[in-house]
Amino acid sequence: MSYTAGRHFLQIPGPTNVPDRILRALDRPTIDHRGPEFQMLGREVLAGLKHVLKTKAHVIIYPASGTGAWEAAFVNTLSPGDKVLMYETGQFATLWHGMAKRLGLAPEFIAGDWRHGADAAAIEARLVADKGHEIKAVCVVHNETSTGSTTPVGEVRKAIDRAKHPALFMVDTISSLASIDYRHDEWGVDVTVAGSQKGLMLPPGLSFNAVSEKALAATKSAKLPRSYWSWEEMLAPNKNGFFPYTPATNLLYGLREALKMLIEEEGLDNVFKRHDRHAEATRRAVRAWGLEILCANPTEYSSSLTAVLMPQGHSEIAFRKVVLEHFDMSLGSGLGKVADKVFRIGHLGDFNDLMLMGTLAGVEMGLELARVPHKKGGVAAAMEYLATARSGKAAQQKAA
Amino acid sequence: MSYTAGRHFLQIPGPTNVPDRILRALDRPTIDHRGPEFQMLGREVLAGLKHVLKTKAHVIIYPASGTGAWEAAFVNTLSPGDKVLMYETGQFATLWHGMAKRLGLAPEFIAGDWRHGADAAAIEARLVADKGHEIKAVCVVHNETSTGSTTPVGEVRKAIDRAKHPALFMVDTISSLASIDYRHDEWGVDVTVAGSQKGLMLPPGLSFNAVSEKALAATKSAKLPRSYWSWEEMLAPNKNGFFPYTPATNLLYGLREALKMLIEEEGLDNVFKRHDRHAEATRRAVRAWGLEILCANPTEYSSSLTAVLMPQGHSEIAFRKVVLEHFDMSLGSGLGKVADKVFRIGHLGDFNDLMLMGTLAGVEMGLELARVPHKKGGVAAAMEYLATARSGKAAQQKAA
Amino acid sequence: MSYTAGRHFLQIPGPTNVPDRILRALDRPTIDHRGPEFQMLGREVLAGLKHVLKTKAHVIIYPASGTGAWEAAFVNTLSPGDKVLMYETGQFATLWHGMAKRLGLAPEFIAGDWRHGADAAAIEARLVADKGHEIKAVCVVHNETSTGSTTPVGEVRKAIDRAKHPALFMVDTISSLASIDYRHDEWGVDVTVAGSQKGLMLPPGLSFNAVSEKALAATKSAKLPRSYWSWEEMLAPNKNGFFPYTPATNLLYGLREALKMLIEEEGLDNVFKRHDRHAEATRRAVRAWGLEILCANPTEYSSSLTAVLMPQGHSEIAFRKVVLEHFDMSLGSGLGKVADKVFRIGHLGDFNDLMLMGTLAGVEMGLELARVPHKKGGVAAAMEYLATARSGKAAQQKAA
Amino acid sequence: MSYTAGRHFLQIPGPTNVPDRILRALDRPTIDHRGPEFQMLGREVLAGLKHVLKTKAHVIIYPASGTGAWEAAFVNTLSPGDKVLMYETGQFATLWHGMAKRLGLAPEFIAGDWRHGADAAAIEARLVADKGHEIKAVCVVHNETSTGSTTPVGEVRKAIDRAKHPALFMVDTISSLASIDYRHDEWGVDVTVAGSQKGLMLPPGLSFNAVSEKALAATKSAKLPRSYWSWEEMLAPNKNGFFPYTPATNLLYGLREALKMLIEEEGLDNVFKRHDRHAEATRRAVRAWGLEILCANPTEYSSSLTAVLMPQGHSEIAFRKVVLEHFDMSLGSGLGKVADKVFRIGHLGDFNDLMLMGTLAGVEMGLELARVPHKKGGVAAAMEYLATARSGKAAQQKAA
Repeated sequence: MSYTAGRHFLQIPGPTNVPDRILRALDRPTIDHRGPEFQMLGREVLAGLKHVLKTKAHVIIYPASGTGAWEAAFVNTLSPGDKVLMYETGQFATLWHGMAKRLGLAPEFIAGDWRHGADAAAIEARLVADKGHEIKAVCVVHNETSTGSTTPVGEVRKAIDRAKHPALFMVDTISSLASIDYRHDEWGVDVTVAGSQKGLMLPPGLSFNAVSEKALAATKSAKLPRSYWSWEEMLAPNKNGFFPYTPATNLLYGLREALKMLIEEEGLDNVFKRHDRHAEATRRAVRAWGLEILCANPTEYSSSLTAVLMPQGHSEIAFRKVVLEHFDMSLGSGLGKVADKVFRIGHLGDFNDLMLMGTLAGVEMGLELARVPHKKGGVAAAMEYLATARSGKAAQQKAA
Repeated sequence: MSYTAGRHFLQIPGPTNVPDRILRALDRPTIDHRGPEFQMLGREVLAGLKHVLKTKAHVIIYPASGTGAWEAAFVNTLSPGDKVLMYETGQFATLWHGMAKRLGLAPEFIAGDWRHGADAAAIEARLVADKGHEIKAVCVVHNETSTGSTTPVGEVRKAIDRAKHPALFMVDTISSLASIDYRHDEWGVDVTVAGSQKGLMLPPGLSFNAVSEKALAATKSAKLPRSYWSWEEMLAPNKNGFFPYTPATNLLYGLREALKMLIEEEGLDNVFKRHDRHAEATRRAVRAWGLEILCANPTEYSSSLTAVLMPQGHSEIAFRKVVLEHFDMSLGSGLGKVADKVFRIGHLGDFNDLMLMGTLAGVEMGLELARVPHKKGGVAAAMEYLATARSGKAAQQKAA
Repeated sequence: MSYTAGRHFLQIPGPTNVPDRILRALDRPTIDHRGPEFQMLGREVLAGLKHVLKTKAHVIIYPASGTGAWEAAFVNTLSPGDKVLMYETGQFATLWHGMAKRLGLAPEFIAGDWRHGADAAAIEARLVADKGHEIKAVCVVHNETSTGSTTPVGEVRKAIDRAKHPALFMVDTISSLASIDYRHDEWGVDVTVAGSQKGLMLPPGLSFNAVSEKALAATKSAKLPRSYWSWEEMLAPNKNGFFPYTPATNLLYGLREALKMLIEEEGLDNVFKRHDRHAEATRRAVRAWGLEILCANPTEYSSSLTAVLMPQGHSEIAFRKVVLEHFDMSLGSGLGKVADKVFRIGHLGDFNDLMLMGTLAGVEMGLELARVPHKKGGVAAAMEYLATARSGKAAQQKAA
Repeated sequence: MSYTAGRHFLQIPGPTNVPDRILRALDRPTIDHRGPEFQMLGREVLAGLKHVLKTKAHVIIYPASGTGAWEAAFVNTLSPGDKVLMYETGQFATLWHGMAKRLGLAPEFIAGDWRHGADAAAIEARLVADKGHEIKAVCVVHNETSTGSTTPVGEVRKAIDRAKHPALFMVDTISSLASIDYRHDEWGVDVTVAGSQKGLMLPPGLSFNAVSEKALAATKSAKLPRSYWSWEEMLAPNKNGFFPYTPATNLLYGLREALKMLIEEEGLDNVFKRHDRHAEATRRAVRAWGLEILCANPTEYSSSLTAVLMPQGHSEIAFRKVVLEHFDMSLGSGLGKVADKVFRIGHLGDFNDLMLMGTLAGVEMGLELARVPHKKGGVAAAMEYLATARSGKAAQQKAA
């Protein structure tokens, strides 16, 4: 090892900074996953996840990355050749689409410009056109991690309803859950896909499905082969807090701690407001620098991350390298179509105002050192916003 | 939490006792899995695993339980309806067999009595009979965790060779790797399946495949759908130390530490000898108690665990409950066909002579408290063996 | 580092095995020792210590080893040349006596044979003879860590009272507190001396005084120079949970956790019973080996440790070396007058039945390997006792 | 516990932010302090400390706060009534002076204005006047933690030499060691006093003396009573890596790690340059805010911390409360004479550019929220300096 003084700033949009309490919770002897102590743990995390997912339906925990939970959504509900309607919001939608093809599904990909969330109207139109109900599932990414655009999930639900289409509704919340409000039940989602390493503030290694009764019913006829991902295998032992195969026990310790912090201590609404505040401060900084935010629709701005367009002729790879080497900060790279054109600032998870200010200062100084054309004043703009936000809050508290 | 004084004795045959050094290694901030620091980590763990698996072939790391690596072995190499020859050594062979069925394969299960490893001669006979080479894979469990019997993997290889059969050879080493000598290349295994939470002394959440060139070639024609488990997707980024989707970074920190401890510090041969010694001491205790070892063939005794038959009319569930409540020790339960008939003593992983003596004392006192008929003297027999083993070692060292 | 498999058995009579929960509690960022979060911590640990010390009087926490709390007891209450009556129970009484001399006091040392606690009658006789009340303090060690003999503190109090002597009563509880019942107020102790690294299950680095009003009043006239150890300097900020100089914050985190475990979770009475049980089991083992317990008076047996006489002509140093090298267990050495004649088995702190059995097995096998004449059966005798104790407990619980 | 998102900014001038590696090093089972593994630890930390203190003389480690090492410096070398020349650089010099009085010494305190280091000329004048050599020691604080002014220790040495005065030279380096260059041998210091919780990046609980041969010789005639602090008692067992009483083992684990990071990994010269850079950036921010730096002499600016004068009529207590509540940052308070007039920004220990920027942003926003009159632009000024410093460094590296 070699010592670089101070803390690394991990400002990619996930994995996020893991709080000490959660790391310390992981750092405990593994227990017997068939014993009574585990049983309490299992019950507790399953219940807590329902709270975070805002669902009374089933929740599944996989010892796997988020990518695994994508696969699980498909193999439990669909059959080879099934049509799936997907929406190209960015790189992660594209990867999920690629997975659908690899698994033998027939995904249809509504093209997008990587600067917007999924368009509910376009989905509605396509579903209306699908008279024969060949489309078996509609899949959108709630918060597209590669672009910082969100999709209005409730609107998509309404679009499906208006189309009176029976397709299952699947939503990827990997980089939104526990950062941006999400409501599995209220929004009528059939399968939610989530992961541990973003808003839940855990290391990677766990992923989740929330499963509606309709999705569960679909397993009866779904013909894609499945074993590891099988909901059916999971749900029976889950009732007693157990799992059909060895769970990632130590990550579950961390999950229990994270759920306690988010639900009982900070409170989900406060968590969301905090993310909103940091996102707005970041956008003000970006604008002050004279740079362009990738997300083109303000109502779809992500509170988890902000993707920023590099000025023409400047490489985000070179820029991020400067930032990493000089300021020990990791920023998110441009992915897929926007590779080398966009960098991403993660401002989600275990994060606060001063960490954000360190982050934005690192970006501003990095722009300077990498000779990227920009105006100064981004940090100042963010500070002004944050101080005003605090000041309003203080005033409110006084009034109350 | 409630405080039970002293350390829990986790003497199930896995997850095993995780050394403090490994827990502390996990307990570090997650890093950017696309950055240069991760790259070094990725390369290091992939190289170390090859050493432990005794292979120069490909090694794959999944953020998943061992069950996932079972699935990966199948979906990468086989097509729906493919015949697979499996051997019923016990519960884990049975579960793997069940998975094969669920995935749409056509497994053939050579019946076993749960007291022996897989019989190379029986496998040979079946393969010889398979003139049309319909059998695409032969699958055995190296160390059957439910019974404590090992399969002579090298003998099975020879049997396949004698039968001149082209089937792939797949071996589950989940509870043997890094506890009992295993040689992927020398024994001509095509796909090895392994997990983190046994001899590798990690928490659960990582699993592994070692993949021969022949197995890799089989992916070209294999028709089972795959994405998360796809070797092909893995191997390209792995070359640079990276992964196609977010890896379980913190568990990889632990893996690096474990590999260092096993390879560079204790040395694999010493690790194996240690496990042999503890297994022999345990068997002497069992015999002294007048109880029967489940494994019927001494050449197939497992060095990872010892399964013990309960005297007729006595419940292992009741016995283990007594041990857990009185002595804060978790023993392995009887699984599947031997449920409530067998208990299992795990003596693998991060373990030493005095931990074993505590374990055996807990069993001996538990037998007494649970009123299970037995003779005293098991602990004494184990001590005598261990002291003699040490004494011989000391003598040897002196002579050297 | 080099990896020795399994856990080290730290069976010296302190520092003791630190529970994971306490280590993890230490492993947190240090906080501002003048801020509100610290204030709560300070108040909590001061209150909890009073509970453990069974006192309503003042409790002082030093960032220092137990030796520092010995010094604090003297310098706060005495003047150069003051007579102090001390009792030679063993090495720690001798060291405390040496400190008294170095600090310019005039200690008088009642000789002892290192096989008994302090004799209340002898103390009474000496005090009665001290017509002029020149003796300013009586000092005894509650549990003599070098010999495993306890002093009946309440009896000494009665002796002082019978002698109607005004001397302060000082008691060292370093290796008894939170292992053996101790009552500062009920036993009329003026200054109690305690440390973190024994029954309190913490690493070394904290020590404590409990201080009666009488002792506090003595500070007015005490002429020994003092600053770091000054109670007066401590008590004022302590009222608000603060300290006059930087406290050992991270050890205080551990202390809070330890107090919670001992008081709220296991309960002090259960802690004492557990120590009694392990001590009795150990003594039965020693007798079965045909070895002699150093403590000559059964009513004074220590529940924290058992000191064992080596057979004539056998070196405890050589024996302990064998045990350390072969079984990775540290036993306590013979100290001072009994150097190389006695070894000590620590059975205090975070300890349970199976850890004890591992410990005793290590001793029994070590005796064999070191060729120390002994009978076998110590481990068996301990197991029989423990199983019977459990069985009685179970019966009781049933009856209740 | 209650969850406040993100990391606390601990920007008091000590205790400082403890790196994860050091916290994790503490978080290990305590070992036998009389065994061979400890011996290596003891030798290693004693050797490493000599390197950091730039001495070949003796180094002493106390399980105690820095205050204890102050006391040790006195009681080992002086006798009751001895004259000691001290210099009022600020609150810590004042506290040390108070200790000298409490210990029965006769300290003479050269008055200072709390805005400068000790004046070598004034010390020289006083020593020249001391014809009878009644002054036995000259004591200065290298880096006055309450004011952010440093004393030119080498100049004071020359002053003593010019005065041809035999007094011992004692220097407090508690908040400078391992942050600001310090040279025990070269500067002819007799007793250096240091602590763990500042530049050494450890939690509080360890303190140090470096001891010249002259100071050691002084112990022969020194009459202040001593036992816990006795160098003599320490040095004999230290030769073998051991300690006369139980050391704070787990903190020593941390010390070993810290020494490795500072000496072998970052390198002391780089550590000093880093502290210089952060101090300069901080001062530029302070000036841009239009606030006044307490230290009046630029050649004496501290690289560990910057004390800032509040504008007339504004309370630092109120200001720091705002910063703590809104931004979860602890700043240093005004102490003693400057209470409520000065706040202090700690920028020492495990610290980097972006942590500094978060810190300064917290101050700037806090000034706003607390309605403290100031100009904006402090953060911008610091960024400009840091970026330029980096840019120069990059240019240099290119040239080399």
